[in-house]
Amino acid sequence: AVAPTVASAADLPTINWRLASSFPKNLDTIYGAAETLANRVKELTDGKFNIRPYAAPEIVQFNAVMDAVKDGTVEMGHTASYYYYGKDATFAFDCAVPFGMNSRQQTAWMLQGNGMKLMREFFAEYNIVNFLGGNSGTQMGGWFRKEIKSVEDMKGLKFRVGGFAGKVLQKLGTIPVQLAGGEIYTSLEKGAIDAAEWIGPYDDEKLGFNKVAKFYHYPGWWEGGAQLSFYVSKKEWDKLPKLYQAAIETATFEAHVQMQAKYDAKNPSALARLLQDKTILKPFPQSVMEACFNAAQETFSEEASKNAKFKKVYDDWLVFRNNQGQWFNVAEQQFAKFNFGRKLK
Amino acid sequence: AVAPTVASAADLPTINWRLASSFPKNLDTIYGAAETLANRVKELTDGKFNIRPYAAPEIVQFNAVMDAVKDGTVEMGHTASYYYYGKDATFAFDCAVPFGMNSRQQTAWMLQGNGMKLMREFFAEYNIVNFLGGNSGTQMGGWFRKEIKSVEDMKGLKFRVGGFAGKVLQKLGTIPVQLAGGEIYTSLEKGAIDAAEWIGPYDDEKLGFNKVAKFYHYPGWWEGGAQLSFYVSKKEWDKLPKLYQAAIETATFEAHVQMQAKYDAKNPSALARLLQDKTILKPFPQSVMEACFNAAQETFSEEASKNAKFKKVYDDWLVFRNNQGQWFNVAEQQFAKFNFGRKLK
Repeated sequence: AVAPTVASAADLPTINWRLASSFPKNLDTIYGAAETLANRVKELTDGKFNIRPYAAPEIVQFNAVMDAVKDGTVEMGHTASYYYYGKDATFAFDCAVPFGMNSRQQTAWMLQGNGMKLMREFFAEYNIVNFLGGNSGTQMGGWFRKEIKSVEDMKGLKFRVGGFAGKVLQKLGTIPVQLAGGEIYTSLEKGAIDAAEWIGPYDDEKLGFNKVAKFYHYPGWWEGGAQLSFYVSKKEWDKLPKLYQAAIETATFEAHVQMQAKYDAKNPSALARLLQDKTILKPFPQSVMEACFNAAQETFSEEASKNAKFKKVYDDWLVFRNNQGQWFNVAEQQFAKFNFGRKLK
Repeated sequence: AVAPTVASAADLPTINWRLASSFPKNLDTIYGAAETLANRVKELTDGKFNIRPYAAPEIVQFNAVMDAVKDGTVEMGHTASYYYYGKDATFAFDCAVPFGMNSRQQTAWMLQGNGMKLMREFFAEYNIVNFLGGNSGTQMGGWFRKEIKSVEDMKGLKFRVGGFAGKVLQKLGTIPVQLAGGEIYTSLEKGAIDAAEWIGPYDDEKLGFNKVAKFYHYPGWWEGGAQLSFYVSKKEWDKLPKLYQAAIETATFEAHVQMQAKYDAKNPSALARLLQDKTILKPFPQSVMEACFNAAQETFSEEASKNAKFKKVYDDWLVFRNNQGQWFNVAEQQFAKFNFGRKLK
């Protein structure tokens, strides 16, 4: 569809939209992206295009944002596409895939590889136009009541973890459990679950997990860089004047940068505080990482063999992802290895 | 000054600006940021606000962009602030400082730390409002005719390298040389210089340095994440309608994201091609890195003791930079270390 053109800026219509966020306001870093976008779009349209964000679950449950946009309940959403992994594993490429890419690599694939093109094709079937909407960076592996020392320790572990990672971990005998954020603390405390992953230090600290499960394992190999996304109803998008389309599109970049910056600014001090309060920081053992990597590879192969949409995106994503490592291991990694451990004075 | 408000969008004026870029068009990744910005601003203002980018040295020499904006020769510029290190070392904090931050950390300091606030204060004295304008990521250490094996090898080395790094390297007896990009190849070939740093694989490949200096050392510890910047004449900025100010500001974020994404998408294949064509990739020896780190620390202390502006920014930047390492060494680094070296199939 072709967007209507306006003869002059004076013709710009007043438009009010609702944006359903998958996130509560206390996740200020993620939720804030919707506000960043809405404020900027308003400014860019002389106050005429108002997008009002609603925190979850005010008008839509956190994992129902995709359906709400698809069905036209709301014009816009802000969410993590891997919440819809259960509907189609292909959604995960718009967010994070186990042993996939980090934040910069994911953005590069989306914008300068074929990622955005492929995901737009995929989302079109859901009446959705997708945009970048932030990234958390590499997340933590989560909070464990007992230290994970071997692959054996993963067997029978009741672990609150999301869709794609859960599928991979089942191959190691782990029992993935689905729980809303608000239920995790009590379940961990009572021992109803043995472990739970959430996001990273800044968000995890608010929920107090360190009080009830002191082993903080890393990395969250299932989300090396979890991208958030804005969804716009395609039907509503096509009705917008070009200037309003441009306002939304450019504002998504601003929200994208600001979210990652906020996480990067806030996580370090949160981690330092957690370490002063019972938290024992431990990498996953190499053997566990290897076993998970192999299990992920099996899961990808199985999914690709039965889901042509998944395979189409995976084939492109795979080449891009495999091509990144050599270069990122050079300047970027060598600088990081030398520099992060050294303080200037 | 307060920006004029417009009664309605119909009042929006037609404005034509010139933007002087410090970069030639063949550096499409960096130069492209000015085009990204100009195109978006035009769209956002219904074609009324036209910013025309000029590649260097069409109207302004690459290292004269700051003066051109300050003096009102052009309304806008796109440049690397460390080009003006010779005028005041404080400029470097807006771009890259030896053993400073990587791309994400620099952005985080600017947007969610005190970086933008402090640099705006500093730039105000130059009649400039500064904005983010991209990042290259960690650059390479450069091309060397002979392999660097020890600190001793740095002594007497004629090295084409920029201001701040040159100052640091002088403490090791290195002789920094200033040369424009177009002069490097011939100087290296003739042995007039022993080494030269430029940017990274994608840009370096175009200049063919691998034909005349096969040792490609890394990392470029003097630019762990070199930020580019847009400059706007403060006088011109204050005259803009608020909507035009918003259009510029938001478009700078888009240009910022797109440049890093383009580098990240294009560097890997360029590195692979260079490695198939004579290039020998070598990290700087640990002893050299340590010596450079110590020399950088000395340089910072000397500069801070004689330049109050530098000290003011350094004191804030230092706390932020030192606070980043612990967290970045956890999830992000552990994921990188495991993941970058492993291919999925």
